[in-house]
Amino acid sequence: MRVEVRFSGFGGQGIVTAGIILGRAASIHDGKQAVQTQSYGPEARGGASRSEVVISDREILYPKVLRPDIFVVMSGEAMQKYLRDLKKSSIVIYDSSLIKTPPARGKPYPVPATLLAKREIGKTIVANIILLGALTTITGVVSREAMEKAVLESVPRGTEEMNKKALHIGFSEGERLVKS
Amino acid sequence: MRVEVRFSGFGGQGIVTAGIILGRAASIHDGKQAVQTQSYGPEARGGASRSEVVISDREILYPKVLRPDIFVVMSGEAMQKYLRDLKKSSIVIYDSSLIKTPPARGKPYPVPATLLAKREIGKTIVANIILLGALTTITGVVSREAMEKAVLESVPRGTEEMNKKALHIGFSEGERLVKS
Repeated sequence: MRVEVRFSGFGGQGIVTAGIILGRAASIHDGKQAVQTQSYGPEARGGASRSEVVISDREILYPKVLRPDIFVVMSGEAMQKYLRDLKKSSIVIYDSSLIKTPPARGKPYPVPATLLAKREIGKTIVANIILLGALTTITGVVSREAMEKAVLESVPRGTEEMNKKALHIGFSEGERLVKS
Repeated sequence: MRVEVRFSGFGGQGIVTAGIILGRAASIHDGKQAVQTQSYGPEARGGASRSEVVISDREILYPKVLRPDIFVVMSGEAMQKYLRDLKKSSIVIYDSSLIKTPPARGKPYPVPATLLAKREIGKTIVANIILLGALTTITGVVSREAMEKAVLESVPRGTEEMNKKALHIGFSEGERLVKS
């Protein structure tokens, strides 16, 4: 009933945006409850970035993520830092163009998001959107329709087509991983 | 030691962005701890928007806002909805170009943010930044320097000057209200 999602990477990768988009997709478009959080501690000044979303069918009384069911990770440092919070069943979707070693815990889903963003779109900035697409088809925690609406209403005006393309690359990557 | 801040208004006013900017200002630039949250319940589908920030010198164990010390409000609906959570000592910074009646609780600080944004900058979208400026000089919860850095790094590229101008209008509005 309750799904805990954590995003982490370094500053400038769109980690906070990814959390906001997932929160909106789940709540406004899929009709669930969602709480989305950024915690800034002393580590924030080191360039690390973290964003969390709790999704539930019922009211969310405790909004913090303790043991993520889904972990989306965009830097080796973040992987190391949060590895110990993972469960055996945690789904780990990681940017395999930036992180070469699969996680030692959880179920690994490698998506070369930054590489695909650069090669297919020409902009690494949409790597976060590719990962959101992969998250959608791997986990089913939100519907494709909800995710697409949330992406399109959250990105800067004029970048909708580019982001839609990135999202669909992510949908396909996720499908490929689930089937393989 | 712990300061609870709530922003509320309707969708498209930059409520979520305001919360993120305040969280970054307090933490990354002022060296405090901060947790920034968006809660989406059934009301999110009605167009209401809410964003919260807890700021502290110590680790924040409970990230929800129950009784805001500072309430920044951009719609009459949001004012009505959250009025009951206010304390006598709560600072209420409200967009007086959109809300004509001062709050029945707390200490009122009227800032005609949307009107000023339109008249001085030609864009109502920066009203949230004007309110962040006013919050800074009214409450002192973050420094001007921290707020300015957080604004400039959070807004879309190419809009820095416009947002800086909006922030400084807010600083002046806040100062004016504190002195009066």
